[in-house]
Amino acid sequence: MKPLKIAVAGLGTVGMGVLTCLAKGGEALAQRAGRELQVVAINARSRGKDRGMVLDHIPWTDDPVALARSDADVVVELIGGEGGVALDLAKAALSAGKHFVTANKALLATHGAALAALAEKNRSALRFEAAVAGGIPIVKAMRESFVGYGVRSVRGILNGTCNYILTRMEATGNEFADALAEAQRLGFAEADPELDVGGGDTAHKLALLASLAFGTAPDLAQMSVTGIRHLTYDDIRFAHEFGYRIKLLGIARQMPHGIDQRVQPAMVKIGTPLADVDGAFNAVMADVGEAGPYFFEGRGAGAAPTASAVVADIVDVARGANGPCFGVPAAELSALTPALPDSRRAAFYLRFAVLDMPGVLAEIAGRLAESGVSIESMIQRGRSPGEPVAIVMITHESPEPAVARALKVIAASDKVLGNPCMIPMETG
Amino acid sequence: MKPLKIAVAGLGTVGMGVLTCLAKGGEALAQRAGRELQVVAINARSRGKDRGMVLDHIPWTDDPVALARSDADVVVELIGGEGGVALDLAKAALSAGKHFVTANKALLATHGAALAALAEKNRSALRFEAAVAGGIPIVKAMRESFVGYGVRSVRGILNGTCNYILTRMEATGNEFADALAEAQRLGFAEADPELDVGGGDTAHKLALLASLAFGTAPDLAQMSVTGIRHLTYDDIRFAHEFGYRIKLLGIARQMPHGIDQRVQPAMVKIGTPLADVDGAFNAVMADVGEAGPYFFEGRGAGAAPTASAVVADIVDVARGANGPCFGVPAAELSALTPALPDSRRAAFYLRFAVLDMPGVLAEIAGRLAESGVSIESMIQRGRSPGEPVAIVMITHESPEPAVARALKVIAASDKVLGNPCMIPMETG
Repeated sequence: MKPLKIAVAGLGTVGMGVLTCLAKGGEALAQRAGRELQVVAINARSRGKDRGMVLDHIPWTDDPVALARSDADVVVELIGGEGGVALDLAKAALSAGKHFVTANKALLATHGAALAALAEKNRSALRFEAAVAGGIPIVKAMRESFVGYGVRSVRGILNGTCNYILTRMEATGNEFADALAEAQRLGFAEADPELDVGGGDTAHKLALLASLAFGTAPDLAQMSVTGIRHLTYDDIRFAHEFGYRIKLLGIARQMPHGIDQRVQPAMVKIGTPLADVDGAFNAVMADVGEAGPYFFEGRGAGAAPTASAVVADIVDVARGANGPCFGVPAAELSALTPALPDSRRAAFYLRFAVLDMPGVLAEIAGRLAESGVSIESMIQRGRSPGEPVAIVMITHESPEPAVARALKVIAASDKVLGNPCMIPMETG
Repeated sequence: MKPLKIAVAGLGTVGMGVLTCLAKGGEALAQRAGRELQVVAINARSRGKDRGMVLDHIPWTDDPVALARSDADVVVELIGGEGGVALDLAKAALSAGKHFVTANKALLATHGAALAALAEKNRSALRFEAAVAGGIPIVKAMRESFVGYGVRSVRGILNGTCNYILTRMEATGNEFADALAEAQRLGFAEADPELDVGGGDTAHKLALLASLAFGTAPDLAQMSVTGIRHLTYDDIRFAHEFGYRIKLLGIARQMPHGIDQRVQPAMVKIGTPLADVDGAFNAVMADVGEAGPYFFEGRGAGAAPTASAVVADIVDVARGANGPCFGVPAAELSALTPALPDSRRAAFYLRFAVLDMPGVLAEIAGRLAESGVSIESMIQRGRSPGEPVAIVMITHESPEPAVARALKVIAASDKVLGNPCMIPMETG
């Protein structure tokens, strides 16, 4: 069989990981792919940069979009970004009938349905295993393995930076800012960390998982996204006292009247699999009704894990895999109907910073009661004269909007300092 | 596109699970498969048996092998057994150019290479996701997702019956026989439990995982297999004191000079993922070098999880997937070279039942020292006059044959009762 010709755009950590993996894979990899895998063109912003590997033997292209006119069978896009060059290259490559493999979650979360349609029109494969949870083959599992019973919900720790920060806050007692600084020093967080700690990166990945699970077009708009900046060491410590750990989760759930998509810190019971995911690891829990649940854990970022996923996609393409990239044909991807706000019910962890004065607890409890929210347990601690006091509560299961309404009223009280913190308790 | 026509042989729990799943899947499943999935023939031993579902509309065949002559595109074999009718049907179906999907680990562990060759010769797909770890898509992941860096070792809890028994022994303090009886009462163990508790079922599954990992023909002969019958509650309790839990693992490892395949109880450190797999769940840990590790956990048996895997294979077939069933072409599957016995090194848990008399500890320690085995820690407990005493040790890392040799000598002492128990400590 003829070699599969590959063009790679973007030679950062992941791009070089892919080239290294392909070069080292040799005979064994060709055996798995059923044919030789041959890199016929590469591109990056700077040709002269030392990348620790001799690349002179591979034809260089200055313009990434020109890779779509190369003789490659498959274009691998590792540039990143939801639009710009990555989008131009995706459109050009697919339109030229080339297969397209990418690690670009932003691109697909934003333009996934259109690119899927373009790929199908041109009989090209569009593959993105590396876009979600690095080397964990969750995209393939969602697309191909859980189809019999269907996915009812998917919950994931999808951002290694946030999980690293939360793990370190718990281990060291540091506040968010210090843990972030440490993560940046060690290369676990970017200089501009907003996409990670603000929840945006998790949102991109969740949009793809939800599409794979429910046959809907990826939809970033119908998603509530909360990051981890507002979490304090107190929250982590209190969580522990209640037997929970705080994790930033991406959650997509089939509800009776629509799909609930959210990125938010959640209380995860210690002893359940998601609670034990440490450091920069990623994990996904898929509820497939009576056939499940299934839990996957592994490295969610870094050169080798991400390259592993990219190369798996390339091998699939070499083997002729070419089903619809979101599991159902692009034309049949439905628009996502968001769940009704009231259908989202949970017990909530609430933390208030209050002035230590008479009546403050009565006021908080009263406002919650007015919204129909009842309290399951409470901790009050840290009382030193004149200092603000933390009041922490776990509510009984309540509709989220009712709790949010009560908190808005409470936050307006002059006895309450700053914004109350509200974190749902995840069950199961 | 034309419907995919399916014949199902075997209408036990899993067979009925598959029929139910296909019947309920309807439009959504057809969308995933890219075509309608149509059951055109069924077979089981007894036609009259009440199976809780009306089957009158599906053509019945008394002879399973006759399904190979039906107009089905794919034959699903859920009869079981390493030879006999299942083998006859596999050969007949593949020879007739039909795709073949099976949950039969014994069949493939024994005849996998030959059937893979037959499938390729006839351009038929041979798929067996349900044969290993039920609904966990580990076969697909090993075959398709970890190909870039290659699998260095795979370790799995692959038998839910054994894991259930070990979990219950720990929870209740019961001995093996009582826990087995409970498992049988609750339907977690067969009336004849030998295939499960003797390790044979795990061995079948491990042979398939090893083949997928290393490109070798499945090889049951080059495998050391120990079950769980000899484990006592004492072992579980002592393990806990050392911070470990005992799990029956199937382990396949690439060693410097060959592949080590073994099924055996192992000490797994509490707090690592495999140690936390409870009850009838299954789990697999794959080491893929710098790209990993990856951990998968889920339901390893039962109607829905197994049917989920079977239906995923059917959908793959419907989509035209037809790569080599063990990841590399059948003709290129290599013979498995077993690792050198001395290359297997581990720290070992050792338990001796001894008479409470002077010199017994000196004798045991002396024999171990003669074999070059040194002791890392020791517990001696349960001393009541006249009763046998348990001496428990953890050795430093040692070659397994040296420890086994020493134990053989020690077992011959008239101060030592019964066979010493020897369990390796798994790291990582």
